[in-house]
Amino acid sequence: MGLFSKDIRTLDDLFVHTLRDMYYTEHEITKALPKMIEKATAPELKAGFEKHLDETRGQIDRLERVFQMHGVEAKEVTCPAIDGIIKEANEIAGDVEDKAVLDAALIAAAQAVEHYEITRYGTLIAWAKQLGRSDCASVLAETLEEEKATDEKLTQMAESEANAKAERMAEPA
Amino acid sequence: MGLFSKDIRTLDDLFVHTLRDMYYTEHEITKALPKMIEKATAPELKAGFEKHLDETRGQIDRLERVFQMHGVEAKEVTCPAIDGIIKEANEIAGDVEDKAVLDAALIAAAQAVEHYEITRYGTLIAWAKQLGRSDCASVLAETLEEEKATDEKLTQMAESEANAKAERMAEPA
Repeated sequence: MGLFSKDIRTLDDLFVHTLRDMYYTEHEITKALPKMIEKATAPELKAGFEKHLDETRGQIDRLERVFQMHGVEAKEVTCPAIDGIIKEANEIAGDVEDKAVLDAALIAAAQAVEHYEITRYGTLIAWAKQLGRSDCASVLAETLEEEKATDEKLTQMAESEANAKAERMAEPA
Repeated sequence: MGLFSKDIRTLDDLFVHTLRDMYYTEHEITKALPKMIEKATAPELKAGFEKHLDETRGQIDRLERVFQMHGVEAKEVTCPAIDGIIKEANEIAGDVEDKAVLDAALIAAAQAVEHYEITRYGTLIAWAKQLGRSDCASVLAETLEEEKATDEKLTQMAESEANAKAERMAEPA
């Protein structure tokens, strides 16, 4: 959550602060995904990341809509959590040479990002409802469903093919 | 994942590296939870964090069992992701004054930790199975079930009472 958090006095403040945390998070993800697309080898994984980059841009638009509905300025606050998750993803992406093992690592890294978003959007939806903003909750719920679907798709990719390839290719005969 | 990751060549290396990442993560959580217990106001939340501290110690024991089963040294590798998530939790815990709003923020922070663990243990279980280590997968699955149950309990606490209290107490008449 980071900067500006001394301004948090009410649940409404906490809601707005966390919206801004996610606004920062989504922007950081749009910067991180192109590197992951470049590193990915399996065409299905590359395509999945590309689709998620498009979705992320739509999620930024949705956050801007929620800021407007709630009558507050759309701005970012630095979020050490997503910074750490992306730092870890970059480190692992830079340090695995075998392409199939790298794909398995990239899927795991992307799922860590998705789970961070799933927990934060889940929280934001609960707080929005508590604050009587079911209109904001509905918009945020569209994003939550996308994040859950992406996580599920990543699991399927890992379990249907990517992990098996990583095991085969990483232990050459 | 952090240090030592240049050693990752095979899926087995990635599995062991991520086990060590979680070994670091669980130890960091045992350091973070006492501060969260101290900050929490609602007795149910305090008790929930205390129970999770006990569980976390059991999860460290399980990781040590998996290291032994897999014939590798139990050691930690620095994990920027959990460092970031805990940094964010500490920042928010230090910056919210109202006790009920703080409880709502602490629940959200704890859920971010849980979701990080859920995604990592899910990945570790899939990789263990791929590597023919269903024995390790079974031990890790016990921890995954605990993490999911903790996350579910935190959601219930938030939705049944904590968010409502945060809204009422934060907006004094």
